[in-house]
Amino acid sequence: MLETYLSGIEPPDACAMKKAQEHWDNIAKPLRSLGQLEEMLVKLAGIIRSEQFPPMKKAVLVFCADNGIVKEQVTQTGSEVTATMAQNFAKGSASVNALAKIAHADVFPIDIGIAETIRCPGLSVRKVASGTKNFSQEPAMTRDECKKAILTGIDLIREKKQEGYNCIITGEMGIGNTTTSSAVLSVLEHLPPETVTGRGAGLTEKGIQHKISVIRDAIALHHPDPDDIIGVLSALGGFDLCGITGAFLGGAFYHVPVLIDGFISAVAALCAVRLAPLCKYYIYATHCSAEPAGKCVLDAIGLHACLHCDMCLGEGTGAVIGSQLFDFALAVYQGSADFQTAAVSKYQLLK
Amino acid sequence: MLETYLSGIEPPDACAMKKAQEHWDNIAKPLRSLGQLEEMLVKLAGIIRSEQFPPMKKAVLVFCADNGIVKEQVTQTGSEVTATMAQNFAKGSASVNALAKIAHADVFPIDIGIAETIRCPGLSVRKVASGTKNFSQEPAMTRDECKKAILTGIDLIREKKQEGYNCIITGEMGIGNTTTSSAVLSVLEHLPPETVTGRGAGLTEKGIQHKISVIRDAIALHHPDPDDIIGVLSALGGFDLCGITGAFLGGAFYHVPVLIDGFISAVAALCAVRLAPLCKYYIYATHCSAEPAGKCVLDAIGLHACLHCDMCLGEGTGAVIGSQLFDFALAVYQGSADFQTAAVSKYQLLK
Repeated sequence: MLETYLSGIEPPDACAMKKAQEHWDNIAKPLRSLGQLEEMLVKLAGIIRSEQFPPMKKAVLVFCADNGIVKEQVTQTGSEVTATMAQNFAKGSASVNALAKIAHADVFPIDIGIAETIRCPGLSVRKVASGTKNFSQEPAMTRDECKKAILTGIDLIREKKQEGYNCIITGEMGIGNTTTSSAVLSVLEHLPPETVTGRGAGLTEKGIQHKISVIRDAIALHHPDPDDIIGVLSALGGFDLCGITGAFLGGAFYHVPVLIDGFISAVAALCAVRLAPLCKYYIYATHCSAEPAGKCVLDAIGLHACLHCDMCLGEGTGAVIGSQLFDFALAVYQGSADFQTAAVSKYQLLK
Repeated sequence: MLETYLSGIEPPDACAMKKAQEHWDNIAKPLRSLGQLEEMLVKLAGIIRSEQFPPMKKAVLVFCADNGIVKEQVTQTGSEVTATMAQNFAKGSASVNALAKIAHADVFPIDIGIAETIRCPGLSVRKVASGTKNFSQEPAMTRDECKKAILTGIDLIREKKQEGYNCIITGEMGIGNTTTSSAVLSVLEHLPPETVTGRGAGLTEKGIQHKISVIRDAIALHHPDPDDIIGVLSALGGFDLCGITGAFLGGAFYHVPVLIDGFISAVAALCAVRLAPLCKYYIYATHCSAEPAGKCVLDAIGLHACLHCDMCLGEGTGAVIGSQLFDFALAVYQGSADFQTAAVSKYQLLK
């Protein structure tokens, strides 16, 4: 079932990309002078198979899940915060909600694996299990649970596309999820845990050392094969990580751009790209997380982040801010004079 | 007269800054997790002497001026483009206008030294002279003209503040103004012309080499004293550079934040900070220009740019995009739940 999606991902439309660049080159400004903003829309043309862009309708999918590894004291706060924040997203009172208003994005919290059972209006329940197991003792989840979480992410893209959304912003909330993400990245990139592990939402220097040793011991225990992405995620991942991995795959399958937020989301993007390399052409980096491995994981995927704000909040906050760059790019692409109307002689692209 | 302004610049209000940080620390999110967004508003509190922020009203001041050095073939297009684009800003058809709509900013083109005489609705005429002299032959302007252009920039801030604007975005249009800016930066930072000179709006590799030699010869001719900012600007600057320098000084004098756009604007900010070091606390970097010295000049001032979009369009385009970060920061600062309302136990700031 997952294999059907993986093998169904196609390359972007090179012809539409070429037309989009030609349109940029006709706008009265020095050629290529909008840099990444031009590239964003050229890439978008490849994704949606057209150089004419419809109005953007943005959805923030906030994947919420708990992580059994929290039992090992790798976080400042307890798992109960995940459920509380999920309800705050649904009520519209969290940071991501405030930012989404400015960026004209709708926020959809998803319970893909919160430990508690909660029901509240606006919270979509797609629970795979009530949190993962403690991966310092046993695998975080089964391979079937991992695939189910990924398929949930893919299906959410289908659903949102059907509802008219054409820009997906990934977000997450899950106490302990920088621990799972650092563990997964350490394996995938063959990097020692100490170079990919940070403070998360707030740890002492001693706390970080403990977090590193928990990750190191767990990798030694499970010894996952770096080429078996499902195996790595099952052993050390979280349902949020798997769900977001699915969102990136779904975006590629359904021709919808999907935006990376911070560290956790970027690790999920790396998993998606390893599962289906063509996926990369459908993924956008937005900001570079302040987590120590924030830049390293984007480099591993090969994507450039425009925003460098030293943020590490999660929830989708950085990607919501980054999504506004589409609005700016589209405003010039669709609303600026061409060389003829501007009465300016056309610039030449010289080398 | 200029000295009155320079000596009238006060340090920011440390007490208001402390209160703004305390407000941030009460919002239900990991402490300091919004990074630069938090710092932006802490700085703003220091500038406006209050941790309570009024709605933002943004003005883009686009300083338009011509440069005599264009006679030396240092640009791809001719001086006539300056006048044409100034009229396009006034008509609302340029890139900066399209971007300003998204960022809710009003665009004000200013003729501070366009070669042609133009009149059109929306273009403010504050002409110091009809373009500068060719600085490969003689000083670009007199010291009096330089001071007059700086005072014009200061006065525009007074005027815009009176009109209710509380956020000033600097922009410029002036064929040849990367040449003037590279020349000024080379002197101020004791850097060889070849490390601070780029393509501008489009030059061949041969064209860049010529531009570098024009700058090198002119510096040798005038040999300005790097500590005499008025002397450096008079010898090698442009009226746009001087006017923007004044805008930064005016912002500091009138307690209004002023945003750097790209390379030219950043060189003006450096001039302002050299004239009055306290000025720095009133200036924001926004994006890092793709011009080779874009980062170097921001480093010289000691400011961090959040946006890295490889842009080099000018007009204020990068700063308009960057100004949106204020809106995002204010949305969370003013619209997010505190720890108590969010029912989340407060995070600790641990070392």
